[in-house]
Amino acid sequence: MPKLRVHALAMSLDGYVAGPDQDLAHPLGAGGERLHDWVFETRTGRAMIGESGGSEGVDDDAVARGFAGIGATVMGRNMFGPVRGEWGSGEWGDDWTGWWGDEPPYHHPVFVLTHHERAPIEMAGGTTFHFVTDGIESALRSAFAAADGADVRLGGGAATVRAYLRAGLVDELEIAVAPVLLGAGEPLFVTGDGVDQRYECAALVAGESVVHARLTRVATA
Amino acid sequence: MPKLRVHALAMSLDGYVAGPDQDLAHPLGAGGERLHDWVFETRTGRAMIGESGGSEGVDDDAVARGFAGIGATVMGRNMFGPVRGEWGSGEWGDDWTGWWGDEPPYHHPVFVLTHHERAPIEMAGGTTFHFVTDGIESALRSAFAAADGADVRLGGGAATVRAYLRAGLVDELEIAVAPVLLGAGEPLFVTGDGVDQRYECAALVAGESVVHARLTRVATA
Repeated sequence: MPKLRVHALAMSLDGYVAGPDQDLAHPLGAGGERLHDWVFETRTGRAMIGESGGSEGVDDDAVARGFAGIGATVMGRNMFGPVRGEWGSGEWGDDWTGWWGDEPPYHHPVFVLTHHERAPIEMAGGTTFHFVTDGIESALRSAFAAADGADVRLGGGAATVRAYLRAGLVDELEIAVAPVLLGAGEPLFVTGDGVDQRYECAALVAGESVVHARLTRVATA
Repeated sequence: MPKLRVHALAMSLDGYVAGPDQDLAHPLGAGGERLHDWVFETRTGRAMIGESGGSEGVDDDAVARGFAGIGATVMGRNMFGPVRGEWGSGEWGDDWTGWWGDEPPYHHPVFVLTHHERAPIEMAGGTTFHFVTDGIESALRSAFAAADGADVRLGGGAATVRAYLRAGLVDELEIAVAPVLLGAGEPLFVTGDGVDQRYECAALVAGESVVHARLTRVATA
């Protein structure tokens, strides 16, 4: 069975996957970009932004696993762009095609969760953004269909990952614990979500800059 | 200057240092003992409970650092015993001398924070329990005086560590992140405590069973 997988989800030591006070200038919240510095120290992470060099090793492998065997991606709108509410017009509205330039690093269909309809956007390199307005299960069904037997990757943000975790739809989740204290922001784990009932930490491995925790489903669940 | 140090403070991947529903039968809360399993796999941890064997390596070193150069310990009453409120009488009251048997593994003065007065208890092997009723700063002053130039170790529980962190009195804190999900319980990091303002994660190192994060004071604070 194809799986829904989360990879390289960066979390601070104090449990936040984004900082507080997210806005147009700080889409990851105050200090949130520090959670992701390690990605751009790796070879795979640098290639994602068109740069060469970077480290190989445990951290690089963790970034690379997020692209291996993946046929489609689901993400929240907050990961696609910083604007909330109606799309509006112009640079931050109906002209916005994501953070990743003309050729996004996905190279497959990407399903963006939103409450506001929008026509698909076909980008260079095989990425097409589809906008899904009828919920997380519908988006996942479309993604599995588009992946055609391959796995589906679940991107961020925090609210999207939590929604899929609460619904028990995530098969594997890899968290990158960064040596960062944010003090406030968007937590990944919230009491009542029941993640401890459905998942277990199958591995905890140190990389060069971060520590990688792998959650898998509890066998009996 | 002598330091106040926290060592081997076990935290679940989802941020809890004790489980929910603490009571007499579950002093660490539901599932909380799973946070500490790794200690008793180490040579130093096994020696603490009078057993031989156990691993050497990164985890063992982390346990051993908690005894090196320490001249006194401060702990919350919840770490000393499971009973709340007045001491009462009998096994769980005025006969209670801690979890550690006749010869506790401290071998130095231990200052127990409580709202309820009690005479000191002198144990075999050099440990004396003193009960401090006038607050965390008073306990720390007494501990530094008793340590006579050596460092002071701060034990648990969660509320005690958080109180000293909020007051900015902790100099170094080593957390052991365990591959465990508890889902609920006593968190270490709480928004508003300001730990992110005063401390930084200076190291994040994998042991055999857990990951060790070392927090030190921010240089400019």
